[in-house]
Amino acid sequence: MAEGPPNPDFERVVRESFGRQSFMESLGATLEEVAPGRVTIAASFSERLCQQNGFLHAGVLTSIADSACGYAALTLAPPGHDVLAVEFKISLLRPARARRFVARGRVLRAGRTLTAAAADVFGSGESGEGEELVATMLSTVISRPAP
Amino acid sequence: MAEGPPNPDFERVVRESFGRQSFMESLGATLEEVAPGRVTIAASFSERLCQQNGFLHAGVLTSIADSACGYAALTLAPPGHDVLAVEFKISLLRPARARRFVARGRVLRAGRTLTAAAADVFGSGESGEGEELVATMLSTVISRPAP
Amino acid sequence: MAEGPPNPDFERVVRESFGRQSFMESLGATLEEVAPGRVTIAASFSERLCQQNGFLHAGVLTSIADSACGYAALTLAPPGHDVLAVEFKISLLRPARARRFVARGRVLRAGRTLTAAAADVFGSGESGEGEELVATMLSTVISRPAP
Amino acid sequence: MAEGPPNPDFERVVRESFGRQSFMESLGATLEEVAPGRVTIAASFSERLCQQNGFLHAGVLTSIADSACGYAALTLAPPGHDVLAVEFKISLLRPARARRFVARGRVLRAGRTLTAAAADVFGSGESGEGEELVATMLSTVISRPAP
Repeated sequence: MAEGPPNPDFERVVRESFGRQSFMESLGATLEEVAPGRVTIAASFSERLCQQNGFLHAGVLTSIADSACGYAALTLAPPGHDVLAVEFKISLLRPARARRFVARGRVLRAGRTLTAAAADVFGSGESGEGEELVATMLSTVISRPAP
Repeated sequence: MAEGPPNPDFERVVRESFGRQSFMESLGATLEEVAPGRVTIAASFSERLCQQNGFLHAGVLTSIADSACGYAALTLAPPGHDVLAVEFKISLLRPARARRFVARGRVLRAGRTLTAAAADVFGSGESGEGEELVATMLSTVISRPAP
Repeated sequence: MAEGPPNPDFERVVRESFGRQSFMESLGATLEEVAPGRVTIAASFSERLCQQNGFLHAGVLTSIADSACGYAALTLAPPGHDVLAVEFKISLLRPARARRFVARGRVLRAGRTLTAAAADVFGSGESGEGEELVATMLSTVISRPAP
Repeated sequence: MAEGPPNPDFERVVRESFGRQSFMESLGATLEEVAPGRVTIAASFSERLCQQNGFLHAGVLTSIADSACGYAALTLAPPGHDVLAVEFKISLLRPARARRFVARGRVLRAGRTLTAAAADVFGSGESGEGEELVATMLSTVISRPAP
């Protein structure tokens, strides 16, 4: 990446695409950092998003981690490309008891077609205090000319 | 399972627990079949649950598949136990263009502490016609005395 | 697959490629069934292939399952293509105490570039009796013109 | 870990157990660093361990990564415990063209029963020069009183 990302306009592309993900809005998720190879997405605890014991549902953590991996890949894609998750695996390390969650996605290896990405999901208090790793994801993302 | 599931009341336990998953309600997901070692959860396409191209977000498919795996494990757990996903992997085989999705979870191997489960997610028309496999999950679930 | 696999000569291609995998020979693994979308690889217990308790090392089960997934994908690839595993996940359901192991790979979805495959690994007695599922794999395979 | 690992004798335990893994010897793999929560295992390219194109078989990388994750978990286990992989996922980021490979395992979260571990596998020249990430694993390990 000595020469910078292939699309200098990557941040606008990522923010526009994120703005079209209605599911992120339904989760109350917000797009935080967008840097070459790195994207952070945050979501807060909500009583509408719980599993049976009142913790955040694993599906919510997974959804923001999946989007963080996909958008981390998109920051390094050529202009006019779109990304799609091929598969991912998530390990749930602690119950999601926190008030706020951030998924930090990063590219491990960007290929022409496939990108390997990872995301760590941290839980914390409302203002980010007491951050603790709650989940970690490995993902494969495919990049293609946008339809 | 010649002797039947360890908790004869498994269906009530699963339905009660599912009823407490507020996230499933937020997704409009419904609990369909509940049988020993098998649970089906359905969800319909909604414009609130999309990714950037207007298909259902992978996180939604993943969430119902995760719950289907967890509850398939719970059907075989002893009375007074609860389940929690340790990890899962999902392969996304086709874009989620369908109108209706069902996640069919099944237990592969029920151990004392850990249960291996799998779920296939099928997309179809509104009434279940034209069913096609869109995703498949492998999951590890831990079973513990309920807190 | 109504029209048959894209390479009618798939079995020869798979058997030749398997014959070049020196690691399969080192494991004493043999290629059994080769059918469109399905490949079976077998290996026997050996004292050279164990983990610390004298069971077959998980890496051995994984290696034959990985090759079974890759070759299942290769049976459906066009002439002149080669396959490579992008990633896989394996769940180890039981200790590998058996004498003989067969990995049965099958294609879940064959795309132009990526193929999703799965393999179940069964353990049994020397002659295949008392077969029991010991591991299950989900894999993503990429197909490309051979180098 | 302010108080140090629960078994002060962890290094001896790990080295003894590794010494009993005949499969590691068959692969020519060696146990390098053993520290609390961290284990490194190395293996060299060999013509006996290849896939169809003459690169190291993914199963070899996976096997040393699996052992590195398991032994990283064992460094933090109580005296008299043994570990077993429950499952793992590996992403293969580059063809394994290198001459030497090291799998660096580390514990992400050590629980009473389950430990989440990760391993990165690097390829390099014979003397470790030109190191490059070729694969990355996420693993779940179970710890139990030794049989």
